[in-house]
Amino acid sequence: MTISQPLATMLVNGVAADTVAVLNRGLMYGDGVFRTLRVVGGRPRYWARHYRRLVADCSRLAITPPEEALLKEELDRLIRSAPDCVVKIVVTRGEGGRGYAPPREAHPTRILLKTALPTYPPHYWETGVRLHLCRLRLAHQPRLAGIKHLNRLENVLARAEWSDPDVPEGLLLDVEGNVIEGTMTNLFMRQGARLITSDLSRCGVAGVTRECILEVAPHLGLTSEERSFGLAELFAADEVLVCNSLIGLWPVRALEGRQWQPGSLVARLSQSLESLDA
Amino acid sequence: MTISQPLATMLVNGVAADTVAVLNRGLMYGDGVFRTLRVVGGRPRYWARHYRRLVADCSRLAITPPEEALLKEELDRLIRSAPDCVVKIVVTRGEGGRGYAPPREAHPTRILLKTALPTYPPHYWETGVRLHLCRLRLAHQPRLAGIKHLNRLENVLARAEWSDPDVPEGLLLDVEGNVIEGTMTNLFMRQGARLITSDLSRCGVAGVTRECILEVAPHLGLTSEERSFGLAELFAADEVLVCNSLIGLWPVRALEGRQWQPGSLVARLSQSLESLDA
Repeated sequence: MTISQPLATMLVNGVAADTVAVLNRGLMYGDGVFRTLRVVGGRPRYWARHYRRLVADCSRLAITPPEEALLKEELDRLIRSAPDCVVKIVVTRGEGGRGYAPPREAHPTRILLKTALPTYPPHYWETGVRLHLCRLRLAHQPRLAGIKHLNRLENVLARAEWSDPDVPEGLLLDVEGNVIEGTMTNLFMRQGARLITSDLSRCGVAGVTRECILEVAPHLGLTSEERSFGLAELFAADEVLVCNSLIGLWPVRALEGRQWQPGSLVARLSQSLESLDA
Repeated sequence: MTISQPLATMLVNGVAADTVAVLNRGLMYGDGVFRTLRVVGGRPRYWARHYRRLVADCSRLAITPPEEALLKEELDRLIRSAPDCVVKIVVTRGEGGRGYAPPREAHPTRILLKTALPTYPPHYWETGVRLHLCRLRLAHQPRLAGIKHLNRLENVLARAEWSDPDVPEGLLLDVEGNVIEGTMTNLFMRQGARLITSDLSRCGVAGVTRECILEVAPHLGLTSEERSFGLAELFAADEVLVCNSLIGLWPVRALEGRQWQPGSLVARLSQSLESLDA
């Protein structure tokens, strides 16, 4: 019998650790990106897509992404003891001296962080959620739009606007009043046979679940659109949902004065999404 | 004789350390603020103003700032061995679980970080600097404007645009084409007897040196204005300067095709600023 090592909940560059250097540019400038994955039965869901997005986001910031095999090996090592969990992957530009200029030879830092699945009441999936309408408006920054980067103060300030425990999400508009996303989710609305999600070319975060929904929509007889729309159009929608990799899909049942009746959209999409990751 | 302790270059919550928790919200979300101070002859310049701004910035993000006496004691401890240096003070919301919502009982993290004074050629002060005109445009986010917060990806991307070692600073415009600041400095222009700096209510960082210049300008017979202006007005200015707590003031001698002759503005302002901190 061998003495078992304590099980790591975090790996920093492959080594069990729960700290990073103060000089890490992730801390100094938010100079990095992240992904949040759900692990089910020992398998990270939609791994290939998450990795692809991580690479794309790193590329937008000119950060060298970790090799897939290396990251996957570390991920597998981390989740061996926890077949059902959440893993957050953070990649920063690494350590750097003072000053904004990226170091000529940067050594990116990769952080894997395992946590328990969050618990939410089952009725969030069944009958839907009420959304808070955030007062904070998202700024337009095309150079950062869509990227899941570490500059998340807008989300922090927006999420601090409400504390009602039965309101799990807030809706974010941009400076022009376009509906963009939730503080931690993407949003879709259905108008008849059209499934519409916000254009994220000027702000917002493009999640993997959003990408999957856009892909499966045609198989359900829905045309999908990425475009701008405002609150009036959202209120007029037949069904609304929010989604991310952790929760999957929640129907939206209320926002301000508007109430939506439970429909079949979320159930149909969820089923199709399963087949995508089979 | 006692064995002397190694001299700390960093203090985290008052203790010599060079790491922070992975779960620190400063790393996860850039959920914090900072200041950069110059220490001359063992004295942190403009301490009272830096502390006041730190408190104001913390307040905008609803982070409890450290007590002045505590922070000053730690600062003095850190600089005892280095009478001339730079100290960066970072205050984050502290550690927190997953999710953007600020923890109900947050314990902010304070980090003090000592580095050597950066070296620049003397002619930057004497004859001035050439500025790169950044392609990146600053987004408008009134909720974060003016705050020296840790979401600095715009600065990182802007600073990565050029690498000419004789161009120490880049000029940032906002999405509307207004002149805002340098990547690490604030900017002033002189039009006759008027000294004008950009309005920072929608983007930009309000530095202490900028504040000091606005205060001393009237004593030099200059009226001071904070307002929006574009490149055309900047090119037409009699003199231009950039400033921050580390470099003090640099005249701007060139931007795109425009050249400025060395004037007396920087010298006169610098002298007045000395008396402010006496």
